[in-house]
Amino acid sequence: MSATIIDGAAVARRIRAEAAAGVATLDRPPGLATILVGDDPASAVYVRNKRRLCVEAGMRDLHRHLDGDVTEVDLAAVLDELAQDEAVTGILLQLPLPPHLDAASLIARIPPEKDVDGLTEASAGRLALGRPGLRPCTPAGVLALLDAYQVKLAGAEAVVVGRSDLVGRPMAALLLRRDATVTVCHSRTRDLEAVCRRADVLVVAAGRPGLVGAGAVKPGASVIDVGIHRGPDGLRGDVDFEAVRAVAGAVTPVPGGVGPMTIAMLLANTVTAARRLGQPGH
Amino acid sequence: MSATIIDGAAVARRIRAEAAAGVATLDRPPGLATILVGDDPASAVYVRNKRRLCVEAGMRDLHRHLDGDVTEVDLAAVLDELAQDEAVTGILLQLPLPPHLDAASLIARIPPEKDVDGLTEASAGRLALGRPGLRPCTPAGVLALLDAYQVKLAGAEAVVVGRSDLVGRPMAALLLRRDATVTVCHSRTRDLEAVCRRADVLVVAAGRPGLVGAGAVKPGASVIDVGIHRGPDGLRGDVDFEAVRAVAGAVTPVPGGVGPMTIAMLLANTVTAARRLGQPGH
Repeated sequence: MSATIIDGAAVARRIRAEAAAGVATLDRPPGLATILVGDDPASAVYVRNKRRLCVEAGMRDLHRHLDGDVTEVDLAAVLDELAQDEAVTGILLQLPLPPHLDAASLIARIPPEKDVDGLTEASAGRLALGRPGLRPCTPAGVLALLDAYQVKLAGAEAVVVGRSDLVGRPMAALLLRRDATVTVCHSRTRDLEAVCRRADVLVVAAGRPGLVGAGAVKPGASVIDVGIHRGPDGLRGDVDFEAVRAVAGAVTPVPGGVGPMTIAMLLANTVTAARRLGQPGH
Repeated sequence: MSATIIDGAAVARRIRAEAAAGVATLDRPPGLATILVGDDPASAVYVRNKRRLCVEAGMRDLHRHLDGDVTEVDLAAVLDELAQDEAVTGILLQLPLPPHLDAASLIARIPPEKDVDGLTEASAGRLALGRPGLRPCTPAGVLALLDAYQVKLAGAEAVVVGRSDLVGRPMAALLLRRDATVTVCHSRTRDLEAVCRRADVLVVAAGRPGLVGAGAVKPGASVIDVGIHRGPDGLRGDVDFEAVRAVAGAVTPVPGGVGPMTIAMLLANTVTAARRLGQPGH
């Protein structure tokens, strides 16, 4: 038996279309302010894609490109201006920043209502306490994939490999809110393979190419690969796809799995933010 | 073999003594503002104990007692006044509040720097992101007990039963920061006994008397019982103490286990808050 291949590109397309439909219901288009500091080529590609899909969904592209030697004071002033600006409903500060800038204190200037990347302390607190808020895009995208393939989460054993602030931890919080029994593993976990093999739902965000092989997968499990690594033979993930597809019930490919979901969820968050900001009381 | 009985009263005494020693190093004593609304007898006892031990540790007792029919606006004004008052270094709003008051929006008025109960969104976010902040007292107390008995956490399998905002979730976050492989169970978990039996460290905060018996405990495990229930034969916990002590390596009694730790950690948090508020930059 071979696993269902989870088609992230198709699910992402649907979510982007839903975001565009959401935009059409608003009195005025949401405005997404992406901020790129310096000229890191990978960051430039990411930001370009975000801007392109934001425009495709009918949103305003309010991009700012700042010199790589911008001072922290000047970048803070830009963030404060965007925070005030009513045309801006979402702010995304592209990471990583050049090393002379303190990412945490700059991110803290983004109002939680416009924090479409879900990276502020306030957003993390809202997630931890189960309150309405903007969730980090990648784990939200994983959840959307699982839902698109009707993977049962309530009562399931979910194992998350990796405990980053961006993916692992918020992923665990989201799965727990959906009534899964959730285990978080990491580099200090004693028998990673045995722990992973308990999982009905296995989310791998370890940042180590091919870490999870067939021996770490319970037959029939749903396996989501958040890793992305550039190698001699193209892109690959944290999961040994060819080996795992023979055991799993469903598995995401790399590329074409989680990757396209991140931007799709960014657009969904931007619509959510615009809707909430437009409500009386804000 | 019979388990080591973890003596929470003794550990709490030591932590209170450390808090008192910390107070003595400060330029001026910390001030703890406990706020009691109405006349719930259990809440009155808790607040009285907090105030008594705060004074014993050399802190200022800045208690406020408000009528049970206080309006939300008036209670908010009291909180705002305490937030501004430099003599107040810790604010504790005793829960539960009467049903006409919205606890979440009132707690949100407590500045995170004075949030000695660790209940605000900001404190939850700081914990989730592993940043310095004030942690909820009960899970912090559990961690202090485990440390006092030199229970190894790095690489250990830790299982937390219960996912409340006050105990279960922050407990999982704290154990994860200490490099345990952490699983969170709850009422929807399929085979609770089997999951618990994986644990080297088992923290039970389910709110169900006697839920965890010997069959849920791996021989030699450390078992921490956060439950407290009043029954015909006195107080008991979520753990069947007599059965579990024959299997576990260490276990907390009820009373005299986690109970005394909560106030001890409140005092420790109040010293921490006073120290940070006294630092330049605040």
